[in-house]
Amino acid sequence: MQNFEYQNPVKILFGRGQIARLAEEISAAARILMTYGGGSIRQSGVYGQVRSALAGREVLEFGGIQPNPVYETLMRAVAVVREQRIDFLLAVGGGSVLDGTKFIAAAALFEGEPWDILKGAPLDAAVPLGCILTLPATGSEMNSVSVISRKDTAEKLLFASPHVYPRFSILDPEATFSLPQHQIANGIVDSFAHVLEQYMTYPVNSPLQDRIAEGILLTLIREGPKTLADPTDYDARANLMWCATLALNGLIACGVPQDWSTHMIGHEVTALYGLDHGETLAVIFPSALNARRESKHEKLLQYAERVWDIREGDPEQRIDRAIACTRQFFESLGERTRLADYHIGPEAADAVAARFEKRGWAGLGERQDVSPGLVRSILAACA
Amino acid sequence: MQNFEYQNPVKILFGRGQIARLAEEISAAARILMTYGGGSIRQSGVYGQVRSALAGREVLEFGGIQPNPVYETLMRAVAVVREQRIDFLLAVGGGSVLDGTKFIAAAALFEGEPWDILKGAPLDAAVPLGCILTLPATGSEMNSVSVISRKDTAEKLLFASPHVYPRFSILDPEATFSLPQHQIANGIVDSFAHVLEQYMTYPVNSPLQDRIAEGILLTLIREGPKTLADPTDYDARANLMWCATLALNGLIACGVPQDWSTHMIGHEVTALYGLDHGETLAVIFPSALNARRESKHEKLLQYAERVWDIREGDPEQRIDRAIACTRQFFESLGERTRLADYHIGPEAADAVAARFEKRGWAGLGERQDVSPGLVRSILAACA
Repeated sequence: MQNFEYQNPVKILFGRGQIARLAEEISAAARILMTYGGGSIRQSGVYGQVRSALAGREVLEFGGIQPNPVYETLMRAVAVVREQRIDFLLAVGGGSVLDGTKFIAAAALFEGEPWDILKGAPLDAAVPLGCILTLPATGSEMNSVSVISRKDTAEKLLFASPHVYPRFSILDPEATFSLPQHQIANGIVDSFAHVLEQYMTYPVNSPLQDRIAEGILLTLIREGPKTLADPTDYDARANLMWCATLALNGLIACGVPQDWSTHMIGHEVTALYGLDHGETLAVIFPSALNARRESKHEKLLQYAERVWDIREGDPEQRIDRAIACTRQFFESLGERTRLADYHIGPEAADAVAARFEKRGWAGLGERQDVSPGLVRSILAACA
Repeated sequence: MQNFEYQNPVKILFGRGQIARLAEEISAAARILMTYGGGSIRQSGVYGQVRSALAGREVLEFGGIQPNPVYETLMRAVAVVREQRIDFLLAVGGGSVLDGTKFIAAAALFEGEPWDILKGAPLDAAVPLGCILTLPATGSEMNSVSVISRKDTAEKLLFASPHVYPRFSILDPEATFSLPQHQIANGIVDSFAHVLEQYMTYPVNSPLQDRIAEGILLTLIREGPKTLADPTDYDARANLMWCATLALNGLIACGVPQDWSTHMIGHEVTALYGLDHGETLAVIFPSALNARRESKHEKLLQYAERVWDIREGDPEQRIDRAIACTRQFFESLGERTRLADYHIGPEAADAVAARFEKRGWAGLGERQDVSPGLVRSILAACA
């Protein structure tokens, strides 16, 4: 096992009816800015539950945060926070609203050009924030990471800071019942991919971390189809929601190497071609696993056996089958797994690789051996 | 899944050499009281590492905290904290030193008779504390619980408060290499028992929690014998240490029923007969599982299959074998699993049951159906 540091202060309130407890979690004197996306929280009834829980409190609103939240929109919210002397941000939505709100929280107290936060400028503080989660997917509800896009430069970058951990996150599975099926499918793929990025590397003798990672994968495989078949199956949705949170709250990363190259490639595909985040992962992961099967050999065999119960055949055949099972699982959720399905041609491989070359990043992944050239072949194989 | 609330703010610094980072974690102005047990931290070299890491700081010492830390000793430390205006407590040791230090931290700022804390008196504050862990077992390094004994009344009771979460816990597996084998065996049993108390109840459709619990059990079964065979096998000790922490940091309790009756019975056996905590669990758990096999039927079958790979035979046979495997595992670690092995006669069953009757506790366990009468039969079967 590798040395590690772990701390996660986020308070989770999980289950039916928990939104009603919202007022206990925010100081009575706070001036609150409630942030959200489109109108879905009104249709689902979550908007009403939040307003009702905060009756009598000073609450302003900022709606219209897009999927893959964009800097230009968020900077308008930063102006509101500053002008209105907001001292608590309440994100009501999925990972995009929450990531956007983390950026607003950091940018509002940042001196200088806030885009520099995405380029690694250190943060001294952020406006405190909390979250009502309506989409199980990104894990942002229990981590300190935020991914932000910028229209004018077609960039999608991330920052992380302990200052943007949510003070609390309320996870009520019923708040997700009315989500479109494709968003749930994207969330399942995203959670699955988060686990793979932290698990599918090389062995470092960390059997408990492996078992927890495999436990999340097995649960997603079992609960994913159930929750798509019946969106109001409370337990299936609750299990998906808890999987999504634990997939990226730092726990399974303790003491192990991490990859994240598929996410990095996916971010570029989203920035250039507009695919949803989950869609990019469903396309890239099978191809990335295949392209890197030698360096991931031992973990691929363990994944084949423990997650897909593949015990027959020679090692290469077992790996082939495990990758095929991964693709089939994504497709069974309604995801497309080829760039051609999105009418994206072979030029994408060059275009994405060129972006990595331009930034001068020599290598991604757990061994820093994913070069722009390898990015090109991975994407070429996604055709 | 049941509703739950989860928050755990403890910072974990895990791995080789982490004790050297100690000074970063404690305010330079703090007056520190270092608490410990007997002389083992001097023999292991941990004492020297701590003093060296804190060179130049104001550090007082309070040694002599016993296993099953006793109120009478701890109250002497409380006097030191008050007289010396201590503002940080550093526990260096295992669960007993840490539990004792949590009590010192709470009692020092408590108005009134501190024993009332063990009877449920609410806490407003505690002196901040940190931990250098030298024995993987109780999980106290990442939770808010403390178990304290009292000589004059032969009581062993617990309290829990968010005020006594360690600010940090340093877990260096090398700091445990010189521990006596029997303490490691007790730690393995204790960790295993912590998982069973939270897992071996009844199903509530919580597949991820089950997988994580089973992952800890499987890892303890694999790593326990390894770390006893070679105490300097770093990875085996590291894996045991991380299992012990995750077994009782609140994570696997999220959304599931909990039992804890074996612990409650074990505390009485320790209070009356002086067995180590781990020893009581190794004696009582096999018998408790057998006595409650009907109400735990489904989880016992799941445990048999997933933890012990028992797939043949009728359900009762599989449960018999799983309980036998549990006992054999404890015995393979060198633990005794019968009261007679400790020269305790059948009168213990009545003596312990009488203590529960006297306190008027009607029922323990996840269904509150463990009556004093059932306690009596469980212990009678431990003969």
